[in-house]
Order: sequence, then structure tokens, then C-alpha cells
Amino acid sequence: MSLLNLRKFKAQRLTAAQQRTLARLAARTRSDALEMISRGGSGHPGGALSSLDIYLLLWLCADVAPDATQAPGRDRIVVSHGHTSAGLYATLGNLGYFPLADVLAQFRQAGTPYEGHPNSALPGVEWGSGALGQGLSVGCGFALASRLERTPFHVYVVMGDGEQQKGQIAEARTFAAAHGLGNLTAIVDCNQLQATGAVADVMPQQLADLYRASGWDVLRAKGHDFDDLYRKLRGCRATSKPTVILADTIMGKGVSFMEHKYRFHGAVLSAAEQQQALAELGKTAQAFARRGAVVRTHKRKPVQPVETTIHPGARIVYPAGKVADVRAAWGNAITDLVARNKSPLAVLDCDLGPSVKTDAVRDKFPARFVQCGIQEHHTATLAAALSRAGVLTFWADFGVFALDEVYSQLRMADMNHTSMKIIATHCGLDVGADGKTHQCIDYIGLTAHLMNFKLIVPADANQMDAAVRYVATTPGNFIIACGRSAWPVIEAQKGQPYFGTKYTFQYGQVDWLATGRNGVILATGAMVHKALETRQLLSEKGVQVGVVNIACPHEIDRQMLRRAARTGRIFVFEDHHRKTGLGVSVAAACAEQGLHCAVRCLGIGRYGGSGQPGELYAEQGLDPRYFVKTIENS
Amino acid sequence: MSLLNLRKFKAQRLTAAQQRTLARLAARTRSDALEMISRGGSGHPGGALSSLDIYLLLWLCADVAPDATQAPGRDRIVVSHGHTSAGLYATLGNLGYFPLADVLAQFRQAGTPYEGHPNSALPGVEWGSGALGQGLSVGCGFALASRLERTPFHVYVVMGDGEQQKGQIAEARTFAAAHGLGNLTAIVDCNQLQATGAVADVMPQQLADLYRASGWDVLRAKGHDFDDLYRKLRGCRATSKPTVILADTIMGKGVSFMEHKYRFHGAVLSAAEQQQALAELGKTAQAFARRGAVVRTHKRKPVQPVETTIHPGARIVYPAGKVADVRAAWGNAITDLVARNKSPLAVLDCDLGPSVKTDAVRDKFPARFVQCGIQEHHTATLAAALSRAGVLTFWADFGVFALDEVYSQLRMADMNHTSMKIIATHCGLDVGADGKTHQCIDYIGLTAHLMNFKLIVPADANQMDAAVRYVATTPGNFIIACGRSAWPVIEAQKGQPYFGTKYTFQYGQVDWLATGRNGVILATGAMVHKALETRQLLSEKGVQVGVVNIACPHEIDRQMLRRAARTGRIFVFEDHHRKTGLGVSVAAACAEQGLHCAVRCLGIGRYGGSGQPGELYAEQGLDPRYFVKTIENS
Repeated sequence: MSLLNLRKFKAQRLTAAQQRTLARLAARTRSDALEMISRGGSGHPGGALSSLDIYLLLWLCADVAPDATQAPGRDRIVVSHGHTSAGLYATLGNLGYFPLADVLAQFRQAGTPYEGHPNSALPGVEWGSGALGQGLSVGCGFALASRLERTPFHVYVVMGDGEQQKGQIAEARTFAAAHGLGNLTAIVDCNQLQATGAVADVMPQQLADLYRASGWDVLRAKGHDFDDLYRKLRGCRATSKPTVILADTIMGKGVSFMEHKYRFHGAVLSAAEQQQALAELGKTAQAFARRGAVVRTHKRKPVQPVETTIHPGARIVYPAGKVADVRAAWGNAITDLVARNKSPLAVLDCDLGPSVKTDAVRDKFPARFVQCGIQEHHTATLAAALSRAGVLTFWADFGVFALDEVYSQLRMADMNHTSMKIIATHCGLDVGADGKTHQCIDYIGLTAHLMNFKLIVPADANQMDAAVRYVATTPGNFIIACGRSAWPVIEAQKGQPYFGTKYTFQYGQVDWLATGRNGVILATGAMVHKALETRQLLSEKGVQVGVVNIACPHEIDRQMLRRAARTGRIFVFEDHHRKTGLGVSVAAACAEQGLHCAVRCLGIGRYGGSGQPGELYAEQGLDPRYFVKTIENS
Repeated sequence: MSLLNLRKFKAQRLTAAQQRTLARLAARTRSDALEMISRGGSGHPGGALSSLDIYLLLWLCADVAPDATQAPGRDRIVVSHGHTSAGLYATLGNLGYFPLADVLAQFRQAGTPYEGHPNSALPGVEWGSGALGQGLSVGCGFALASRLERTPFHVYVVMGDGEQQKGQIAEARTFAAAHGLGNLTAIVDCNQLQATGAVADVMPQQLADLYRASGWDVLRAKGHDFDDLYRKLRGCRATSKPTVILADTIMGKGVSFMEHKYRFHGAVLSAAEQQQALAELGKTAQAFARRGAVVRTHKRKPVQPVETTIHPGARIVYPAGKVADVRAAWGNAITDLVARNKSPLAVLDCDLGPSVKTDAVRDKFPARFVQCGIQEHHTATLAAALSRAGVLTFWADFGVFALDEVYSQLRMADMNHTSMKIIATHCGLDVGADGKTHQCIDYIGLTAHLMNFKLIVPADANQMDAAVRYVATTPGNFIIACGRSAWPVIEAQKGQPYFGTKYTFQYGQVDWLATGRNGVILATGAMVHKALETRQLLSEKGVQVGVVNIACPHEIDRQMLRRAARTGRIFVFEDHHRKTGLGVSVAAACAEQGLHCAVRCLGIGRYGGSGQPGELYAEQGLDPRYFVKTIENS
């Protein structure tokens, strides 16, 4: 077929015949894009048509193919402005990635994978997008994965020009230049319009200057001139710096009355308009021999997180009687894992290495350490994409930065079934003197929304060590949260660590540290130690309460709950906002299971101040003396 | 006093005598900064010393004074890199804003206002910072408030150079240039170091090029040369463009062994180091006549949101029998309020005007409409600062952008006791075909963490109208959340709207739309209509359930709950993640109040697809037919 020699950009440039073939293919693809929007009843036609020639060339010329969508060395094409999905789907449908007829019939219909914004379950779609501004970070993740995995491939990211306003793109630009990602090419669909008007009116930017100031090579291309676009794209494959191609395009390209009209950003054509548009496109939409065989897709292909193989090493056990830093236990475990494994593994840092205990990895294994700067939005998406590309990715940061700051990025990662491992240190009032801005008191409540993330809150250094080895060997997204101060090693019996050599972490398992007939305390993290102290004080008064460590606050074990409820009183201690943490989950679970048991939640009710953690806990009644009173009086 | 003529930059330049006085003052202030860190046991000395000369000059020369910290026309000085608090506090303490002795004794101590990161309860501190990258957006808010309020003043924002990596700063740069904020000056403390190394190693940036590419004037200054700094600052007061001064500074300036050492970013000096440092500074730290009288502060001055006076106008009432768009009701209400009031009022948009119904304000009252582009992080902080400066500020955006994307910005706004009004449209599966990325299903759970935000979810267009007028006239932060589709006007009795002419919104009030002895449904927003339909279907089968509209899901009315619990069964219907919404709050409240009542939460359990809202609800069992079955079988 006449376009075959374009694959992998083998041809130096396009022949006149190829250009004519492409023009016919483009017209047909445009009419398909409009047809699916029309049938679906909603969508974004304007940008779909302006990006469409770029999509066609990329999927025809990059090292990608419908029968090799999981090949490790394939190029990666990321569409960041996901609202152009109709253009993307029409392209992929016409090039054999999935049945065109399916997407024409199912676009934006319930129960189908052809969602309003691209779904990464579809062949050819590397990343599900929707929230603007994240795609360039995804591209950085893929481009970096190529280097870490020693598998050369090129990464293309297509973005909108309005989208360039998002700050995360500035972060990604800075990162890509600093890391010399020459295998990364960004293409900006410069149609000069955005949803509510001209970019120049809404929020003007000098894109060439900005990319150049960020250390990128900048090219300008005619976005509907296949020959020009092909040559510019081809030239980007052998550079040492990341390159941006500013592609001058036309919103609504190909349909006279749509061109240059911002109202077609998100408007469905009327029946008359649709008829006219198809007529205009139909003139050149002749029979076109489809490229390759159509790969039939499952309607809902379940996306699995990528598995990586890693040796978990031997547990480091901190001896009983020791006060051991839980953060340091993470640092020791990851250093051990990095030393032991040669598989692609990355430890990301946002300029906090020594505080989050990744400085040993940085110093001893610099090739595994990725400095991301104070750019958490970018880093969250980068980590997600790295993990999606098969790199075992750890990111350690303060809880307020790794969770609160980047909640929206985690949400998109969650929808892409990534496999990132976040270590969120400095959670709770346990942060102390840095004050309320740095105290992450919402790590349970926030992460409860993320359907494909699991949360682990280790109770001491030993459980941290076991948890790190567990998440390293288990596919999927994990967050391990801990505080800042060092806590005593929890003991099974005098002199023996509870989470000793024989202990392996299991997600969802609860730890009955003590039993008691007068009630049960459920506690997480730092509060486990206060619970044990409370138990001791009560015991001296003849009151016997049990203590359960809930290391996985999103999993309320039903059997544990029934057993605890039989005592008639459950107390929840947490270094967390009391309206959104473990306590409300426990109360809801009791209600759901019909357990008639008093549940009392003792958590944080207002922002903390600056001070020693002990003082801050005391200010909010989160210390053993107050707990004793509460339990005695309830 | 020899420095008096510097105030408001009256002097053309500094005399030699003034420079000597400033040098003495600076040395003393440096030793105070180090002393408070040493006494407090933690803090960030390096940046405190590099920013300190900038702080001294700004608070001496701008139009600010310790006895006029609330004067409407004062200049605003924003410190964005809040970890330099010791330098800031030492400056303000030495210039009479609060007792120096207090901060020396109380820095980072529990129960005091001298927190690790600046607290806006302190005189002279315009904005409490801590999360990096937000200060320039705050400055934009203040600078824009000056224009909207027709009160001329100048705004200064001091930032770190490492901090420049944050993408939100790029958004603020773009905004400031687009809006021609000539009364805004940014000063970057370019000490070339950040927490873990040299900026050039961690994440290099060409700041002059970036600011210039963003349309700013760029000046370079010697950051420890008072004369040079004074002249540059003075020159910025009469420009039409925003200006950045890149101030070349030295981390740890003034103490030989600290200078140029990044380890002093966050390290407390040892006793020996401290002694040497004070000796070095003491050489020039002679007796210095303090400027002005010391204003004694309350230890914990409660910060109140700024009140604005506005006429709420007359209610718009949508007639019974009508299906009325709740989003449009917001649009109609705000257009009415803007038309009726001359007080400073702003409606912010992120390129979604027609979708979020602010296009009428844009078209009819362009001076009140602020286009922010696709820059939600910046916009959230801008809105917060505008409201803090006395502008009645509304920001309408999709829920996923106005809440999920900017959670961290809202958290900082929350801590600053702002008074912003967010209208979060497109919440829930009700969004429909745009799919999961655009369905905000966490608006209750997320906002539950924000101690000083209130959430309102109107049940129909009439309650929306009343709610908008309520939040417009009530100080404090409010979020009004709604879906995308139009819902029927709720009726009190046939033909009469429930939320009619006589209804006024009261925060926390619940609406008993119907009573019933066989159970009670609590519902929010879109689900209220499904609850009413469910009630009707059950009623035909002889089952009588009550329906309560919970428009304020963070306030669970105790009396209502007791009354509902007496029926033995509470059902919660919500277009929200079922683990973090109204249901768990209700269950927890029942547990807390000891109400033995079955609570069944019916909400969202997985991400929605693309499709009609009705189909998406049905996919997750959130429709009346399924509700009827659940209630019959429970």
C-alpha cells in the first residue's frame, strides 16, 4: 500500500501520490469523526478536526501498529487534550485499531469503552486523558522509562494551544529539558481558539518564546500540510533536546462553516449543518483501502497494572526496646531493594531527599534516583506514567505534597490503572513545628475516593519495612503514609518485635495487639502507640480494653468489627481529621452490618499549630490521659 | 528618624548614612532571626537570611505601617516562600508590628501565633503561606482588587528561586501580563540554592527569559545592596506591566560559614555555630532606635472573613410544574446580583462561561467578569485573595476543576479565612456523556476536610436562587454544588413551589419534603428527585417513606436524625462516592448519638462511564426501581 513506507518515518519525504492518498483518508476520517459526534449526541468537533491530520500522520508514521499495541519497543503517542476523542477514535478506527463501525455506533454510549474522553482500555490509546495539562508529564514519564529500561523508542505528545495555559505543562517543560529527553516530541495543535473565544482574548501566551526559554527546540509547522508536518516530525527523531512543533491549524478544518469558529469547540452540528459538512467532506471521501487488519476489541477490556519482577530481599528487623524512625525504615528498605535488583526501578524526589530518606539512594545509586524539583503536579503524573510503562516507581514526599497538592493527578492515574508507590511522610499532627500547612490530616479521607489505590499506615518501623517489600512486589497503586517522629518498636511479648522476621505484610490484615472485655480501641499509625499507653493506664485501674492496629484504614475487616462490637464499645484513635478518617468508616460499617455498638471517634477537629507533636496532640485531646477519661466516662 | 523619608519611596535614593543605618538594622535583625530559630529548635535559617534585606526594605519603604495594618489603601506585601518566616518575623518584630520579645520566645511554640509558616493573624502578614508557588497568585488577587475597588495601592510578592519551578507561578505570570497588572512587583530571592542542592543541579531554569516570555518587565538587582534594591523597587511603582526583580542574594548571608551552603536551608545551628554567628553579626549589631511604637498583639487574634455589603435583590421563583435548569438558576441569580449592586464584585471564569452560566455577566457587565483561562490552580488562589481583599468573589467551574484540581489551593485559602464563593457545576454522574474524568463524585468528601468552608447542594432551581443570595450576603467560604441536567421544581403542594417567594435559605436547615412511618430517605441534589419518585412508587405499594432534602451535607441536624431514626430505617441516596459522602456522616452521627437505627447508604461504588445520566445511574443501581427493591427487601 502506498503509505507503507512512511512507517517509522522511513521515507525521506512524502510523494505527491501519498499526499493525495492522505488527503482522501483525512476527509473520510473527518466525516467519521463528525458522524460519531452526531450519532452520540455530544462531543467536541472543532478540535477533533484541527488535530486530526496530526493524529493520522503520527499513527501512520511512528513505530506503532494495530497488531503490536503492547510491544515494549513501540513508540508512545499521548493525546493530552482528550476532548478531541472523536478525531482520535476516527483515526484509530480507520487505521485498524478497533472496528470503526463500533465506535460510530457506540461513541459516548453507556456501557461501551468509547467514552467522551479517551479510555486507555482501547488499543492504540496509551493514556486516558480528560483533565487538561497532564499529557506532557505523561510523555516525560514514557520518555524516561525508555532510558531506564534501555529500550529505545520515541514519545509524541499532542496538546491543545489553550491547554498550554496549565501550569503543569511549564513544570513538564522544565523537567524534560533538565533531563535531556531528546526522545520526546510535543506537538501543539495551534488552532488559536479555545472553548469560549480566541486564545489571544482569553489568555494570550507566546508559546515559541516560552518553550525556548524552557530549553526546548522549537519548530513551526503547517498543521494541515502533510508534507511539512511529516518532515518536521521526522526531523525530531534524532535530537538531544526535547522538541516542540507548533502546528498551525484551523479549528473545524475541512468544513467551510466550521472553520475558525470557536463555537464548534463543544457544539454538536444541527441536522442541516451535519448534512452540509458530510457533503463537503464527501467530495473527496472516496473508497479508501483500509490499512492492516482490524483487531477486534473486547467491549470492556480490563486494564491491569503492569507487573514488574523484583526480589523483595530479606526483612530488616528493628529490635524490641528501640525507638525507631519509621521514615528511616522506609529509606533503609528502599536502599536495600535498589541494591538488590537490576530491574527498572526509580525513586522520585521533589527536593526533599534527606527529609523523606531517599538521600542514600541518591548518593549510592544515582541512576535510579530521579530529581523532579519542586514540581509535584508534574511528578505525580510522571510517576504514574513511569509505572504504566513498566518501571517500578516510588515517590516519597510530604503527605501534603504527595496527596493534597496532587489529588487531581492521582485521580487521573487511578483511572489509568497505574502502579505507582507513594510514600507520604509527615502525616498528621506528628509533623509538629512546621505547622498546619505541613500537617497532612486528610490522607485517609482523600485517598478513599481513589478506587484503584490502596492505603497502608504502618504502626512502627518493622511494619514499614514489611510494607515496602510488599508494595514493591504487588502490582497496583499504593500509598504508604507515616508521620515524622520516631515511635517505639511494637512488641509481641517482652523483647520480641510484633512485626518480626516471620511477619509478612498482607493488605487488609488487622493486628490484634491486645484484647479486652471493656471495649476495643482501633488505631492507626502514631495513634497505635497512644492506644497501647491508654490501655496500660486503664489496666492499672482495672479497665481492660483491646487494641487493634488498623494498618489498612480503607479495609474494615468484618470479623474484627464483630468481635470488637461484642464488647459494646469501640473507640477510634486517629491522627486525622475526625470527620473523614477511620472513625466514620467504622461507624458506617457498624451501621451497614447492623452491629449495635457505641462508636466514639477521637481525631482531629481543627487545624494544628506549631509545636512539639505531644503538645499538639494534647491541645486536641489526643493523648492517653484524655483518652483514659473519655473511656472511663463513656 | 533617618529612615523616615524612605516610606512610600519618597526619597530618590538612599543616603550613605541611611545605608549604614540599614546595615546595622539588618545585622541586628539577622541575629534575631537566628536567635528565634535556635530557641524554637527548628526553622529555616538560610533563606531567612537571604530574603531579609528585601523584607526590611519593603516594610520600611512601601506604604505600610504598624499602626495601619488594616488601612484599605495600604500596599500589600506577600511572602510566598513561607519557610523564611524567621526572617519575616524578625523584620516585623524590629519594625514594631508585634513585640520582638514575644516572637523570640514563642517562635514555633504550641499555642502561639508565631507558627513555622507565616500566620495571617499576625499584623503585617497579609497572607499565611506554606505551600510553595501560590504567592504570586495571591499578589495578582490583591493587585486586581485594587483595580476593582478603585483604591490604588501597590503589591509586592517575595518568592524563592527554587520555588519558581512550581507551575502555578507560570499561570500567575500569564494572568498578570494578560490583565496588565502594573501595580504588581515580584521579587525573587535568587540565592541559587534550594533544600537539597544548587538550583542549577536540582532543576535549572532561565528565570529572566521565562518572565520576559510571559510578558513581564525584568530587572536584576543586588539583593544585599540596599541602594540598588531601593532604586529598582522604586522604579517599579509606575509601570503598566508587572515587573519582576531578580535579586541576587546569598543563602545564609551575613554569617561566614553559612553563606552559599544549602545545608542551612532547614538546619538549626549547633550551639557553637550559633555563638559564632551571633558574634559575627554582633560586631555591627549596635543599639538601634526602633521605628514607631510596638503594637501589642493578641496571642491568637481570630481572623474574620472580610464582610462586603450587597443587596440580595428579590428572589427569582421558578414555577411549579416546570423542569428548571439549576445551573441556569445560578446564572440568573448572579446576573441579577451584579446588575443590582455597585460594590466590588467579581465573577471568575476558566474558559467555561456558557457551560457554567456566567456568559450573561461577561456580555452585560464585562468589568465584573474576570477571565482566568485554563489555569485553575491560579484561579483558586486568585479568588481567595480577591475575597480577602474585600471583593465579593464568585468562581464558577466544573466540580472536578473547582474542587478536585485545586484542593491544595482551597486548603491554603481555608487557613487564611477567606470569603470565596465557588459554584461547582457538573457534579455527580449527572454529568453524563463527558465521562468519568469530568464527573465530580467527591465534592462532599473533599470539602469535609476544609474547616472554614461550607457546602450547599441545592435540590432545585428555586433553592439554588435562594442559596446564591444567601452566600452573597454571608461572610465566609461557600461552595454551591450542582449537577448538569435540569430537574423538576419541587412542590410543597400541587402547583406551589416548595422553595417559593417566602423561602430564604438558612445554612444547616433540612427540608422534610414528606414524612412516612416505614423509613426515611435522606437525599442531596439530583437524588432528591429520585427519592421523591421512589416514595411515590412505594406509596402505591402501601409502603410509606419520608423524604428529607439535605442541602447542607456537612451539617447533620440532630433533631432530624432522631426523628428519622424513630422509623428504624434510614436510607441515604447520593450522587457521590458512597464511602465519603452523606451516608458515612449519617452513620457516624447515629453511632455518636447512640441511635440504634439501620443506615443504608446508596451511592456511587465505581467510576461512571459515558452516557445519559439516567443510564449511568441505572448502571450503579441508583434509580427508583432499584431503590424500591432495596427498601422493600431491607
